[in-house]
Amino acid sequence: MDKYEKIMNLAKRRGFIYPSFEIYGGAAGLYSYGPLGTLLKENVKNLWRYFYVLNEGFIEIDTPTLTPFEVLKASGHVDEFTDLKAFCKKCKKSYKAEDVKRGDKLVCPSCGGEIKETSQMNLMFSTILGEDRKAFLRPETAQGIFTDFHLLYRFVREKMPFGVAQIGKGYRNEISPRQGVIRLREFSMAEVEVFYDPKNMNMDPSNLKGELPLVVDGEVKKMDLKEAVEKGIIEHPALAYHILLAYKFMVACGIDDEKIRVRKHRKDELAHYAKECWDIESYSERFGWVECVGIADRSAYDLTAHTKASGVDLCASRRGEGRIKKKIVAKLNVLGPIFKELTGRIKEELEKMEPPAEKKEITLDVDGKKIVIPEDGYEIVEEKESVERFIPHVIEPSFGIDRIIYFILEHSYVETEKRGEKYNLLRLPAYIAPIKAGVFPLVNDDRLCKIAKEIEREMRLEGLQVFYDDTGSIGRRYARMDEIGTPFCITVDFTTLEDDTVTVRYRDTTEQERIKRKDVPSFIKNQISESLKNIFND
Amino acid sequence: MDKYEKIMNLAKRRGFIYPSFEIYGGAAGLYSYGPLGTLLKENVKNLWRYFYVLNEGFIEIDTPTLTPFEVLKASGHVDEFTDLKAFCKKCKKSYKAEDVKRGDKLVCPSCGGEIKETSQMNLMFSTILGEDRKAFLRPETAQGIFTDFHLLYRFVREKMPFGVAQIGKGYRNEISPRQGVIRLREFSMAEVEVFYDPKNMNMDPSNLKGELPLVVDGEVKKMDLKEAVEKGIIEHPALAYHILLAYKFMVACGIDDEKIRVRKHRKDELAHYAKECWDIESYSERFGWVECVGIADRSAYDLTAHTKASGVDLCASRRGEGRIKKKIVAKLNVLGPIFKELTGRIKEELEKMEPPAEKKEITLDVDGKKIVIPEDGYEIVEEKESVERFIPHVIEPSFGIDRIIYFILEHSYVETEKRGEKYNLLRLPAYIAPIKAGVFPLVNDDRLCKIAKEIEREMRLEGLQVFYDDTGSIGRRYARMDEIGTPFCITVDFTTLEDDTVTVRYRDTTEQERIKRKDVPSFIKNQISESLKNIFND
Repeated sequence: MDKYEKIMNLAKRRGFIYPSFEIYGGAAGLYSYGPLGTLLKENVKNLWRYFYVLNEGFIEIDTPTLTPFEVLKASGHVDEFTDLKAFCKKCKKSYKAEDVKRGDKLVCPSCGGEIKETSQMNLMFSTILGEDRKAFLRPETAQGIFTDFHLLYRFVREKMPFGVAQIGKGYRNEISPRQGVIRLREFSMAEVEVFYDPKNMNMDPSNLKGELPLVVDGEVKKMDLKEAVEKGIIEHPALAYHILLAYKFMVACGIDDEKIRVRKHRKDELAHYAKECWDIESYSERFGWVECVGIADRSAYDLTAHTKASGVDLCASRRGEGRIKKKIVAKLNVLGPIFKELTGRIKEELEKMEPPAEKKEITLDVDGKKIVIPEDGYEIVEEKESVERFIPHVIEPSFGIDRIIYFILEHSYVETEKRGEKYNLLRLPAYIAPIKAGVFPLVNDDRLCKIAKEIEREMRLEGLQVFYDDTGSIGRRYARMDEIGTPFCITVDFTTLEDDTVTVRYRDTTEQERIKRKDVPSFIKNQISESLKNIFND
Repeated sequence: MDKYEKIMNLAKRRGFIYPSFEIYGGAAGLYSYGPLGTLLKENVKNLWRYFYVLNEGFIEIDTPTLTPFEVLKASGHVDEFTDLKAFCKKCKKSYKAEDVKRGDKLVCPSCGGEIKETSQMNLMFSTILGEDRKAFLRPETAQGIFTDFHLLYRFVREKMPFGVAQIGKGYRNEISPRQGVIRLREFSMAEVEVFYDPKNMNMDPSNLKGELPLVVDGEVKKMDLKEAVEKGIIEHPALAYHILLAYKFMVACGIDDEKIRVRKHRKDELAHYAKECWDIESYSERFGWVECVGIADRSAYDLTAHTKASGVDLCASRRGEGRIKKKIVAKLNVLGPIFKELTGRIKEELEKMEPPAEKKEITLDVDGKKIVIPEDGYEIVEEKESVERFIPHVIEPSFGIDRIIYFILEHSYVETEKRGEKYNLLRLPAYIAPIKAGVFPLVNDDRLCKIAKEIEREMRLEGLQVFYDDTGSIGRRYARMDEIGTPFCITVDFTTLEDDTVTVRYRDTTEQERIKRKDVPSFIKNQISESLKNIFND
């Protein structure tokens, strides 16, 4: 049994992850989160919000997964979001060409024959809104952010840069997915679009402190971030900053930092919208290096595309740098006598025009009438433009939540022995662990059970997810909690009846200490909140 | 401008709710949550989890929205999840028949003519998984729970009753939706399936304390819950309990309890799976009474349907009541001499059989051989069956999160005056409010700004969403926070420089008090957590 199989067995047995619709034979690329998996996932999302929404101060929005055709036509997905499909005529089976490449041939994994028939397949799920409006399930959350740019820019009071986050489902109709939870057709993603003024993408240098395991010339090398920017390995500081932040997030999730690398996309790997892209990859024993986060420089690609397609101006403005702009000013003392009551309308239309390069007669169309303005009927004046309009550039960190959850499980999984028997645990950070504490009566005595149940209830009312258990030996109960990564266990024993103390037992050290019963909820809450705050206090 | 328009204007201007894809002309039935709306929605979801997952101890799962055809065929949705469509031949427009009923005619709202052409339209969005597997976007989260029943039952260690919650997107391809956020094609729902042993649906009577505004004979009447059960108005205690709990949740959200009523479905309104159903409706000035929660008795409908269609037994077991079961026991001393080395296999096959009503020769097929067992080759013995298998019954509270959010806004919206000018606020409960506190320097002084920004940061690291603001008069800043329902404002002033205190100002009373600067985060956190705990301490 390899590691993946072990993790997936554990995941199914203990309620983290289930293959979906198994009673109907399952559905490739679809997985469900069981009770513990759902808690874990919620914790990962909230940690992500802690990084991006609370700490970075980005705003978060929530837009539909159903997306009209026009949006994804404009964004390029209708034409470009495709994979090469290899179809074996003999077996009548389709494969993603990439998956069946052997050297420069495509080989059918089923019959071993060479596959020659290939075609591009669009990866979006399509459907119909109402009776006839073509739509897709979104392939990324990003387009919902871009199409609302004008509203969001107003929300942040037109300050740049600003970031907009979104967590939600994304869909990708993979050609016969065969990599379990690593390749899903419906997945959870967490994305940020950070909008920058391209003329001002600098970063406070104190934000670039840290090292990253960069892949340089095919080898992983710890490199100082500033050096990476100075050497031009990473394009610019804003991109570098977001790679660092995403890396820190991965480590904070409990993913082994020795099994993370940061790799730049080759030109032929780049998505159609990306100018430069870095992947944060994590190492799995079965699948090797797997992308978990992509940090892309999307430049002005999307906002430009939507401005063009929709006709709505998705621009921001900056204070101008004194650029000179020419404009027309009507001379009313000349025009008035000629045009009488029409003069007002003529002035209005005239001043809207771009000034000609040189002064000359101008012909205007005013309310259907042709009007000729004499050369002396207007002036061309020069004005300093105080505001410049521009299309913002975008840096996008995009996280695959399901893959991250898989890696949290694989990397926190520890096999050990206890009294000659196999003993497994998950070393999850306390803020990620689905269950924060086990609450046990030492033995099945009514008085102890009653107190333990009261503690369970108090903790739940304080928002802590805990698990009450009074079955089996205390060692067996610790083992059940260790196996699912519960960081603390609270035990009520006969001493509790005397002095109102309980024991806290720590998962990783198995050490125990006694604390006052009434302090239990705040003690556990503080432990969790301190470890969270420590992420940013290094 | 009616109330709905006022609320939707506020919602768009302040970033709660946006019509989706407006730059492409919008898309009927699709709305987006802006930055404040997303925070509000997250708070509503978490309050719901506080009720159902933490307090009730139900488990929560998360299953795909993409659902294979077979699942929804078995559940009855392929055949029954339809609306009657009215099609006007003259205008070429479709309507939901219900919406254009005038007396017993269907009248086209566009041309005023009578519509005669109607047809049933299935309301599910359909798509294709891979290249040819028919699938739908789920119309409810419930089916993901039912199809995993066997796994979830094992997770809770086979104890009954137990509840399984799910929060996520549901989809419904409404026929030309025209009621804004009230009728969505993509919506967020929160559902619980509570599985009961139908022979034991009783409730601790202390759980039925409380009154509900029931619609009885067309009038709303406050009725004691126990009375409602005793009089047979509500079918049974478990259903009554879940109506009460859902009602309490609505009130805890900040929805006006004077604008809530609880109404039983008429027979002709019942969904195909429901035996009895109660709606919790809320009153809107534009739309009248609107369903926000449905609490349905789905009986054994779904688990029976999936057991039948999938062939997988979705049963639970209870300790039997001593029912007698007959079985065959082989008599080896008779069979051995006849069948020699085959005896073992024969015994095995023989004992698997249902015993005949009377003793007689039995003909068996063993590994392709026909074997005749003489009448004296076996006995029929009677055994007490210790375990009975049964298909659980389901009570389902199902919440429409988007409608609830709309009603939170409509009911918490207060118009008042301040110094002769219009002044609006949202009276949101602190745990529901998107922004917990405004943090202000009294004036734009570097020293005050620095401290206010430090407080902002400390609060964010404690998980509190706050808003720093140093623009405009302090009154203007209070007004901005009141308008979006922020319960507290913290102001740093010159006294802060002397004694390290700040003022806390309360939204609803506009009263102020001074507290120690270092206590700010814990002060606000405690206020919120106390108001939460009070929900269950009445």
